[in-house]
Order: sequence, then C-alpha cells, then structure tokens
Amino acid sequence: MALEDTIATLAGETKRAARQVANLSTTVKNRLLLAMADGLLARKDYIQQENEKDLAAGREKGLSAAMLDRLALSDKVIDAMVTGLKEVAALPDPVGEISDMQRRPSGIMVGRMRIPLGVIGMIYESRPNVTVDAAALCLKAGNAVLLRGGSEALHSNLALAKVLQECLAAEQIDPAAVQVIPVTDREAVTCMLQREEEIDLIIPRGGEGLIRFVAQNSRIPVLKHYKGVCHAFVDADAELEMAARIVLNGKTQRPGVCNALETLLVHRDVAEDFLPAVGRQLVAAGVEIRGCPQTKALLPEAKAAAAEDWGMEFLDLILAVKVVADLDEAMAHIAQYGSQHTETIITGRYAHAQRFLREVDASSVMVNASTRFSDGGQYGLGAEIGISTTKLHAYGPMGLRELTTCKFIVYGEGEIRE
Amino acid sequence: MALEDTIATLAGETKRAARQVANLSTTVKNRLLLAMADGLLARKDYIQQENEKDLAAGREKGLSAAMLDRLALSDKVIDAMVTGLKEVAALPDPVGEISDMQRRPSGIMVGRMRIPLGVIGMIYESRPNVTVDAAALCLKAGNAVLLRGGSEALHSNLALAKVLQECLAAEQIDPAAVQVIPVTDREAVTCMLQREEEIDLIIPRGGEGLIRFVAQNSRIPVLKHYKGVCHAFVDADAELEMAARIVLNGKTQRPGVCNALETLLVHRDVAEDFLPAVGRQLVAAGVEIRGCPQTKALLPEAKAAAAEDWGMEFLDLILAVKVVADLDEAMAHIAQYGSQHTETIITGRYAHAQRFLREVDASSVMVNASTRFSDGGQYGLGAEIGISTTKLHAYGPMGLRELTTCKFIVYGEGEIRE
Repeated sequence: MALEDTIATLAGETKRAARQVANLSTTVKNRLLLAMADGLLARKDYIQQENEKDLAAGREKGLSAAMLDRLALSDKVIDAMVTGLKEVAALPDPVGEISDMQRRPSGIMVGRMRIPLGVIGMIYESRPNVTVDAAALCLKAGNAVLLRGGSEALHSNLALAKVLQECLAAEQIDPAAVQVIPVTDREAVTCMLQREEEIDLIIPRGGEGLIRFVAQNSRIPVLKHYKGVCHAFVDADAELEMAARIVLNGKTQRPGVCNALETLLVHRDVAEDFLPAVGRQLVAAGVEIRGCPQTKALLPEAKAAAAEDWGMEFLDLILAVKVVADLDEAMAHIAQYGSQHTETIITGRYAHAQRFLREVDASSVMVNASTRFSDGGQYGLGAEIGISTTKLHAYGPMGLRELTTCKFIVYGEGEIRE
Repeated sequence: MALEDTIATLAGETKRAARQVANLSTTVKNRLLLAMADGLLARKDYIQQENEKDLAAGREKGLSAAMLDRLALSDKVIDAMVTGLKEVAALPDPVGEISDMQRRPSGIMVGRMRIPLGVIGMIYESRPNVTVDAAALCLKAGNAVLLRGGSEALHSNLALAKVLQECLAAEQIDPAAVQVIPVTDREAVTCMLQREEEIDLIIPRGGEGLIRFVAQNSRIPVLKHYKGVCHAFVDADAELEMAARIVLNGKTQRPGVCNALETLLVHRDVAEDFLPAVGRQLVAAGVEIRGCPQTKALLPEAKAAAAEDWGMEFLDLILAVKVVADLDEAMAHIAQYGSQHTETIITGRYAHAQRFLREVDASSVMVNASTRFSDGGQYGLGAEIGISTTKLHAYGPMGLRELTTCKFIVYGEGEIRE
C-alpha cells in the first residue's frame, strides 16, 4: 500500500475510535488508565526486549550516550510512565463541564459544554515515554491519538502502543484510539499533516527544525513552541537579594530547559549595587556572562555580548546581561527579542508590577518569581502535553483543558425565532 | 514595489499599531468607536461618492441586482454600521479580565489574564459594511485589523477605512490599526496568508471556494465555517405541535442563511401522525420536500430524495426528509452528513435530550428549539464576527471573547523553584 493510503487508513481508524472515546464515562476512562499502568508493569519484559532492538541499532549507528539514555526504557523510566498514568487518572475530567448558562430574552437557555477535540496528532522525536504520556492525557480528555515518534525509537513505540491497545481492547474500547504510525521518514509526517478530515490538532515536540517543518506543511491547526528565551528585569527599587535569588535560580537550577533564564536586564540605577554581587554568584556557579558595555564596566569577568546574544536560547550556563534606562526600555527589549514564553520583573513598585503584567506579550508573565515556575505541574494543571507560544486556542502550558474545546448547548421549550 | 513587499509593509505597520491598541483603556476604545460612528455620518457624502464608483463599475460589468444591492452603501446601510459601532462600544471589554487565580504550594499566585490576539486578518467578498463591522469588533477586543475585501468594493472599502483612520488619528492612535489592502487579486490573499510573523488569526467570510482556498494556503491559523447543514430530529414522544412549529421556523423564517434547517429526521413511530400534518404546512409555505421512500409514502407531494440531498446546504425553500428507526440512527445520520454547525432534537424524553446534547458533535446542539437561534446576537455574545465550525480556539458563534486569548500571570514574593 502506498504510504499516503497507509496514513489515510490509520487516520480514518483513529477518527472512528474517537467517537467512542468521546463518550466514555469518567469511570471507564480512569479504570482504563489504571489498567494501562498495570499493563506496562506486566509486560515490562516484552517492552524492554523491543526497546533493546532500538538501543542496539542506536549503538551501531553511533548515537551519543545522551541520546541512548533518552531512548532507554529502563525500570526507572517505566516506573515514571506508570506514575504518570496514575496521576492522570486522578485528575478531574474536563469533559462535560457546563458553564456560562443563561436564559436569553427569547426564553432559550444557552451555555457552553466542554467536549473533546477529537483526534490529536503527536509528532515527536527520540523519547519513547512520550507515547504513553501523550496517550494518557489525550484519552483522559476524551480524544483518540495518532502518534508519530522518531525512527530510532520505532520498536519501543510500537511495543508501548501494543500494550496500551491490549488494555483498550480489554475494556471493549476500539484499540485504534491509540495508534503509532509504523513509518518514520519525513514523508510520513507530510502525509499526516494533510489529513485535515480526520485529525483535529497537531502537537509537535522536538527541535526547532522539526517544529518549523510541521508548522509550514500542516493543513491542520498546530500548537507549537519554538523556543524559550526568558528575560528577568531587575527594576530600580527591586529587593536586590530577592532579585539575585531569582536570577540564580532561573539560570542555574536546570539550564537546559525552555523556562530557564537567558537574558538579565538591569535598571541602571541599581546596576552598580546589583551586578557585581550577582555576577560573583553566577560566576561561582559556573555561568558565563555576556554583557553590554555598561555590564562589562561593572563586571570585569564578563565577556562582551555579540549582537546575536540578545534573544539567544543558550540552554546552557550562559547569561546575556544588559543595563537599561527604565521599565520602558526593558519592555521594548523583551518585545523585540522575547519568544513569548516567560518573562519576569523583580520590582518593589506596585505600578510597575501591574504595567509589566499587563503589557508584556508572553504566555507567562511574572512578578517577583523565577521563570522556572512556568510549567503545567507548577501551575496546577496536573500534567502538561506541551507549552504553546502561539496565541490561538492555548497560550502557555497546556493541560487537559487545552485538549478540549466548548460547544454551545441550548435548552428550549419550543421557542422559535420571530 | 512588488506585491509581496507591499503586503509585508502593510502587515508590519498593522503589527506595530497592534501593540498600541492592545494597551488602550476601555474608555479610549469606546470613545474611539463612538467617534467612528459620528465620522461615518459626517463623511457620508464622501463615502457614498466613492461607493458610487464601485456601483458604476458593477453596473458596467453586469453584476446582478442582488449583488449591486449588497454593494450599495445606502443611507440605511450606513445607519446600520453606525448603530453597530454604538452597540460594540456598549459591550463589556473582555481584555484584562483575570480568572482562575489560585495560590500554589510553592507560594506563587497563578491565574489567567485575558489579552488581545494581536493582528486579525479579515478576508471577505462583496459587502463593504464588513470593513466597519469587523474593525469595530477587532478594536474593542484590543486588536489591529488588516482587511482584504472584494475587488468590486475596493473604492468603498478604502473610503470607509480612510474615515476610520481619521478617527484613529484624532485619538492619537496609529491609523495603521485599521488597514485595507489596496490590491484585490488572489495573489494578494496568498501573500497575506504567508505573513505569519505579523498576523495572528485569519477570518475568511464568503463562499465555500474562498474559504477552502484560504484554509489550504494559510500558514496562519484560520477560523473557518464552510457551510451549515442543520438537522432537526423529531423523536417518538415529541410534542408534535411544537415539532411542527420548530421545523417550519427553521426552514422558512429565513431560508438563505447558514442556521436554516436543511434536513428533517422523523422517528418512525410518529411519522404517520407527524409527516402529513407538517408536510401540508411546509408545502403551503412554498417548501419543496425531498423525501426518503417512507416519507414519500406518507406525503404524496414529496419528491424522491437523491443521494446528494442528504448533507446538502440548499439555502432555499427545499427540505430533505427522512424517517429513521430511533435516536441512534438519527445521530449516526447527523454524524455522517452534518456540518458541525447546528443540530436540534425535539423530544419529550429527558434521557434522549441529554444524550443528544452530549453526543452530537456540532458547534451548537439544541433541545426543543429552532436552529435559527444559532447566532451570536441570540446567544448574548453582543455581536458576531463569524461562526466557527472547526474546534480549535472557538467553536460556534464568535463574539468579542473569541477575538482574545489568555496568558498566565504569576504574582510572587521572591519564590524560586527547588
């Protein structure tokens, strides 16, 4: 069968299953997720045996130790997937919630009912645990899911999907509710992105190259997140010890993630007091500082920042530092170089806090807190299927609610339109 | 300048204006809308003079009377735009609303703040009043708008935009907040659909051909509505007089609109009682009935329905009628032929009402009410910029709220992530 037809068939099956999944009760969905947790443990040998095929091929191909580590379904990774399934089972079910119900002058009662989106298409790279984590969130929100993982993890992804499908079948649910596309070249992605009749939403997770490819080739709406270039602005009357703590935490607690701090902006009135002190702490923590001329004058350890350091996602122990004249210059810098991910101000002034919150265009805007809090778990969403830095449908960390939408419902008593 | 560069320049200007519009206070936005209402009346002669150029060209091209009527900016149409502006000024401002604020275990307070989308791209066909109606809704929701109307209305659209821009300038707001693209060929639409860096959302309004073209060529999210194929299902224990009233209203009150009724499904247990009576009333109202064999047996006036009559948007005094075995067959028919616009059940049975509301996948699902209520005004949204029949971001009638999104805001007191 031609690739296009294979993908069309898979997508059609997943869409049929979606109608059943949309109408499952919360009880059945939770029982299913707990059965999947048990299933992963019961079938651990099989899963690890299939995973070993991917690992062997990866070693042969000369994958780096870090990549092999991401690929491995160790006992610890399987335990984490099991815990994840149980946590999602424990989350409240967003489907069916009714809101904004009001009686209209015509007599009808109108409101909104939360419903599943339908079929979610996940496109991801190396980590096979995404197969289980994404399936759990999609199913809990009443959606079916079509998964396309990386080529290096194909055996692992197919094995995980097989176990999940066994659990679906045991609950009399169409196993096509969770499917892995067994073809891993880019062509398969391209075909998938044309299935607008079956797939309601595409969520890509991976490097910027993959995400741009998906965004540019999709006829289906895409929730995307290119990168996180997070700024902290230390205002003139910031509490400087608090500011140093937030900057240190943002940059060093986990530098390789998208909510880590990449650029520090400092009000010129406190630069002299603040920069030497925080600079010493950063350097002691192994951070390389790339500063503007004023920063360099105050911090001899700093290198000179190049033009491309502003707006750079270092994902490493590197921090760009710039002295600015005031709040307006800080917000203009963020508007120019930010990535609409997370921005924070450290300030003691009420009016500045409120202006920053209102005017900065980012999916998360904070006052006196570390950018590292920008995360579905920290926000209380329970679990996170990704972070959106585009504004349509969802903006910021996406939990179960972002995998649903609302329809209008009307309760009438025979009303007609005059 | 090449067309591509013209559109890029316009889009860039609109994006710059959007940052200013996003931060306007409600007071300023309302004053602006009222000034625009006054401006349209004060500049009526100029607007009608420019409109006359379009009408003359239209007459020369041999446009139909109906098309010329849609194109004309008569006193009545201008009054309606003025009223529309005043109504939008009176609506509550969705921007800045904070919801879901909660304290997290880390100590931070997290919530969501409603914000504008940024730049809305409207693509529409003949009616020049869309220029004003769309601009009003976009501006009130804090957005800038880039408009591309039909070629036959270009002078009218440019004149209306000029008047709106004069009002923007008088309020010290960047006039680029409302811009009409002065090029009307398809190439201009294609260029516009590539400006993902500047335009946040595309809303096409027009025929299915235009909308499909936009959906297939856009890199920007599109809120689209292809067609409205609305069904009514008369259940076994429906109150038959109520059912007849709702069917008559759905089909005949305004047959040319997307929420008009196109297909009637009747439970076989009441077909004999219901169809002859409602059939007579429909025929008396000038409706042509295209029925399944059972319908034809009960209603000799009915023509035989062809396969393509199921799922057809007649937009005319034609109704497809089918007798079904039960609720499940009715819902299966709707799942196969519906357009995710509006579906209604007429029933006396509680459990059937609840199942229909929950299980039918459409942007509006009703019990015992006419499909004609599916409308932003009737739902209390104030005014409507369109109806979305795709599920991402908005599903159903779209008002001001659907022209906004939410960002996360965090109030901290120096918290860091452990």
